[in-house]
Amino acid sequence: MPRVRLDVAYDGTDFSGWAVQPTRRTVAGVLLEALGRLFGDLPFGMVVAGRTDAGVHATGQVCHIDLPAEPWQAVQPTLLRRLAALLPGDVRVHAAAEVPDTFDARFSATFRRYHYRVTDAVHGAEPLRRHDTLAWPRALDPGLLNAAAAGLVGEHDFAAFCRRKEHATTVRAINRLEWARDLDGVLVATVQADAFCQAMVRSLVGAMLHVGDGRRPPEWPASLLRLTARSSEVTVAPAHGLTLVAVGYPSAAEFATRAEATRRIRTLSS
Amino acid sequence: MPRVRLDVAYDGTDFSGWAVQPTRRTVAGVLLEALGRLFGDLPFGMVVAGRTDAGVHATGQVCHIDLPAEPWQAVQPTLLRRLAALLPGDVRVHAAAEVPDTFDARFSATFRRYHYRVTDAVHGAEPLRRHDTLAWPRALDPGLLNAAAAGLVGEHDFAAFCRRKEHATTVRAINRLEWARDLDGVLVATVQADAFCQAMVRSLVGAMLHVGDGRRPPEWPASLLRLTARSSEVTVAPAHGLTLVAVGYPSAAEFATRAEATRRIRTLSS
Repeated sequence: MPRVRLDVAYDGTDFSGWAVQPTRRTVAGVLLEALGRLFGDLPFGMVVAGRTDAGVHATGQVCHIDLPAEPWQAVQPTLLRRLAALLPGDVRVHAAAEVPDTFDARFSATFRRYHYRVTDAVHGAEPLRRHDTLAWPRALDPGLLNAAAAGLVGEHDFAAFCRRKEHATTVRAINRLEWARDLDGVLVATVQADAFCQAMVRSLVGAMLHVGDGRRPPEWPASLLRLTARSSEVTVAPAHGLTLVAVGYPSAAEFATRAEATRRIRTLSS
Repeated sequence: MPRVRLDVAYDGTDFSGWAVQPTRRTVAGVLLEALGRLFGDLPFGMVVAGRTDAGVHATGQVCHIDLPAEPWQAVQPTLLRRLAALLPGDVRVHAAAEVPDTFDARFSATFRRYHYRVTDAVHGAEPLRRHDTLAWPRALDPGLLNAAAAGLVGEHDFAAFCRRKEHATTVRAINRLEWARDLDGVLVATVQADAFCQAMVRSLVGAMLHVGDGRRPPEWPASLLRLTARSSEVTVAPAHGLTLVAVGYPSAAEFATRAEATRRIRTLSS
């Protein structure tokens, strides 16, 4: 069965997150329903790069699914237009492309990048952006936010910022974390890491906001990195400010090299 | 009574336009209700620069209202924060400032500027911007759109593009009309004129879109300027793509000069 990579965007407002749940409206649920109409029974589920929580948005989510070969060949040329007609306005598929079966939307990903939008304007969030912008009731200092951010970059055990999960590592490598005001004065955090544990971006943002408004010293978030369990002092920032904007993968050439290496290893060991 | 200028933004999606209507939710209705809570009975209504239709948005709307002096003095320092708490999330007041009583939000305005957002992406509008972006089902050529636009700039009788109104002139001066793709690939029209008649921007956009997708020649919209009544061939583009982004006024210095001139004329004639 051909493996297909889907690039997906959604407004998370009316979704109970990405993952399929029997009685709730989820992004994967809505996507699988539309794909089912075009491809019939889908024996395999979707694998996603970032399993976003309820209310979190995406402009650059990536997932993969194995589709039956015959309908895929037939439908492929008009797939995006057909999906646009089948899907509700709060989910869109930007691209759909056949990929090597070594491609895995989750395990091949080299980084996930998120944006978190916050306004400290007295009048609150702009009406047209209120669905993806948090209104913060105190003035925020970008210098303080970036001082807090600097202490969190690098590979650390982020246990203090993670929801507990059995047997899951909380060691992650943040390779980018910075705040900047956009043209409309909105403070946008860019957070990029190899991977994130659950609620990690929102916990980091929650901690940094309490530095940005002057209630905590800039060293405080980094000082929590010595903890080995979730800190009750860290507030999880609301979901609606968060958007998954990009997922990174090795280039097609790198995939081909890897596939060739795998083939040789198999030949040698057989 | 002090005259106060309010700079207002709104998401038009859930409003039946600006103007107060007895049984419908309108922007002016919601604003007057909030102002009434702070200032008590308001003997005078609001005067607005752009009486936007149902579904049209604003980031730079301007209105004025005369407020009772005593509560104004008391409330003024905290007005924006109080309004932010009283108003629903789809209306925000960006600024509130006392202005000379010669200032009139409608008649002092020197220009109104609108943006109209259209995407021709196969997959339709981005989920997070679907409330203020029209999805056009055919590919659009910015060169053709701008060729159509060029023929409409200047002072003309825009009767072909106006909803009929008794005794109202349809002569207007468009001093800016251009299309550009933004960083996300969305085509944004910037339309600026001294004033607009009802549904004029959306009628102009509707005509230009039929040039942009190749179904009409670039000269067609300008050729309608010879008509003296609304053209049934012109489609009014949907309201949700349209946003009032700015209203221009003379500078404070110009207002002072004018006020002085008015005072002298009165002195001379008395």
